Amino acid sequence: MSENRLEAGKKTFKKVTGDVGEKFLDNLKEVAPDFADYLVEFPYGTIYSRPGLDIKTREIITLSSLATQGNAAIELKAHIKLALNAGIAREQIIELFMQISVYAGFPAAVNAMLAAKDVFNELDRK
Amino acid sequence: MSENRLEAGKKTFKKVTGDVGEKFLDNLKEVAPDFADYLVEFPYGTIYSRPGLDIKTREIITLSSLATQGNAAIELKAHIKLALNAGIAREQIIELFMQISVYAGFPAAVNAMLAAKDVFNELDRK
Amino acid sequence: MSENRLEAGKKTFKKVTGDVGEKFLDNLKEVAPDFADYLVEFPYGTIYSRPGLDIKTREIITLSSLATQGNAAIELKAHIKLALNAGIAREQIIELFMQISVYAGFPAAVNAMLAAKDVFNELDRK
Amino acid sequence: MSENRLEAGKKTFKKVTGDVGEKFLDNLKEVAPDFADYLVEFPYGTIYSRPGLDIKTREIITLSSLATQGNAAIELKAHIKLALNAGIAREQIIELFMQISVYAGFPAAVNAMLAAKDVFNELDRK
Amino acid sequence: MSENRLEAGKKTFKKVTGDVGEKFLDNLKEVAPDFADYLVEFPYGTIYSRPGLDIKTREIITLSSLATQGNAAIELKAHIKLALNAGIAREQIIELFMQISVYAGFPAAVNAMLAAKDVFNELDRK
Amino acid sequence: MSENRLEAGKKTFKKVTGDVGEKFLDNLKEVAPDFADYLVEFPYGTIYSRPGLDIKTREIITLSSLATQGNAAIELKAHIKLALNAGIAREQIIELFMQISVYAGFPAAVNAMLAAKDVFNELDRK
Repeated sequence: MSENRLEAGKKTFKKVTGDVGEKFLDNLKEVAPDFADYLVEFPYGTIYSRPGLDIKTREIITLSSLATQGNAAIELKAHIKLALNAGIAREQIIELFMQISVYAGFPAAVNAMLAAKDVFNELDRK
Repeated sequence: MSENRLEAGKKTFKKVTGDVGEKFLDNLKEVAPDFADYLVEFPYGTIYSRPGLDIKTREIITLSSLATQGNAAIELKAHIKLALNAGIAREQIIELFMQISVYAGFPAAVNAMLAAKDVFNELDRK
Repeated sequence: MSENRLEAGKKTFKKVTGDVGEKFLDNLKEVAPDFADYLVEFPYGTIYSRPGLDIKTREIITLSSLATQGNAAIELKAHIKLALNAGIAREQIIELFMQISVYAGFPAAVNAMLAAKDVFNELDRK
Repeated sequence: MSENRLEAGKKTFKKVTGDVGEKFLDNLKEVAPDFADYLVEFPYGTIYSRPGLDIKTREIITLSSLATQGNAAIELKAHIKLALNAGIAREQIIELFMQISVYAGFPAAVNAMLAAKDVFNELDRK
Repeated sequence: MSENRLEAGKKTFKKVTGDVGEKFLDNLKEVAPDFADYLVEFPYGTIYSRPGLDIKTREIITLSSLATQGNAAIELKAHIKLALNAGIAREQIIELFMQISVYAGFPAAVNAMLAAKDVFNELDRK
Repeated sequence: MSENRLEAGKKTFKKVTGDVGEKFLDNLKEVAPDFADYLVEFPYGTIYSRPGLDIKTREIITLSSLATQGNAAIELKAHIKLALNAGIAREQIIELFMQISVYAGFPAAVNAMLAAKDVFNELDRK
């Protein structure tokens, strides 16, 4: 196991995902402990830790990819929270999903917007 | 036909796509003239013309969506050029596609990178 | 905003979607009011309002596209209702989804059929 | 092997696909002879031979599914020819693909239109 | 109807799917009785009954395809049970989904693992 | 950089992919040198190097995933060669793709078979 990458990943993962990520990871570890490490190590310790793009841009890429695929509702909601944490405004997230309608169709865009609505409502209730 | 949206779309389309777009549009018009107008009017006159996100961010969204889908090679290459025109560096485009590997898999990422390579080589030969 | 297209869209949207659409649209408007207008204006005011294909054929196209994508259950159920409203028989909707098994696989076809079953049962309970 | 279904499939396949289908089938048989029989037997001898939908409607379903998937260019071009043979007008095929832009995005729609353009040009040169 | 293929399919279907399959089939028959027969006849009576690959390998192919598509949660859970019945270990199923992360991305892999976790927990409670 | 994983990856990559992989990697390195290392390190040094599944099974998983996605022709052809190198017979590869028709549709299956045919012909010419 690459200790450095894994350690870097843990820091980036914690910074980017906060409590959202920790619960998700504990859940995953019960069934796939090695893969939970890989997930910290590769996406977070390797990709997200690279200096080439800032965290805002990285969340925009991720939201665009997940909304386009349209079948990862849990991941999409998690990254909507992470995008907000990274300083992206609610209106910009909706604006992003509007543009997805052009490339992946209106149903994919609408589904992403309704997922965003759920997240916004959940945050407002707290 | 909504003259204002279409006119706004023509301006935005020209600014964003330059010569790349004009040739594409002429090609499309031969078989689907109304749709060529809709394409100018809705994606460009409506979505890209909105103030909520700058053009750099819009190209990042588009590249992420197209690379994720992985079956729109022509559109992807066109938008790689448009991203460069918008001021996104070559290294950032490759960085973006690296991150796509996490969400849409390595083959989608590699195919997007090789499409970028083709575009970069084409530009260098000019 | 293109008043004519938007107005035409509102009429077509009301005629095609009835109460199903209105509730959906109110839900969407809370988070994305501009996009709710675009959705009325482009799919309904622009595409569905064109004379080239009748509404039955348009619903067949939409059901085929949504069943193929397999990740837009809400939209699929809504359009199953709209297809019934347009005069397509229940048996024809099932027949359509049978054919989808050839092009998009048996799971996509079965999921669409079970969505249709839910809609039929809901209508029978009323 | 179900002789009746296979024989029914051969007739339907010939009627629907004509020369387009025969060449395709010979090509497939070289590597997968059993599967070539299944393809005649299931899609054509079973699904397309059912009375519930006419052949025009079946081609509309197929074009919608293939254009939505966006990665089966050869099959899409073949079925554009079959749709023309079934009496669907060129303008209606383009109209169909316009509507796909709403559900599967503009790139999928444009790619299908450009495939149609290739087929139309090929037929006009004959 | 091809009696032989259908009869062969019923035997293979029963052997492979056990009680999981019967309930599913009864559910499907209510809305699509002919298609329920085709599903027994083609996937099970035709494909799964062929000698070229053993049932373990066939379940590996199916799990890989379903996890890659990422939008057939019910089918995926059913086939996780069938894979266990065929003698594939829980650890191997997780191992398979790890590899899917490379080709279809981390969200598809994680979703498949969490589906497996649900199935394992359900079996452990019995 | 994790030297151990990268070194393990280089060995596994060489063993699994032979000359096919080296050329591909050199091509990728020109535009994305870091990512070429990640590709060796994660899929090969991390996933393929794990003991849980043998290399034959791993190639079956990969072929199933790539054929299902249907838009990674280059990767699919490369892995057809790697599957043959791993000792999977040509007939088994075709058998695998037959089964894909059930889950991802006939066009995805046919396209994979025709890709296999190209690879078989290329090998026979040598």
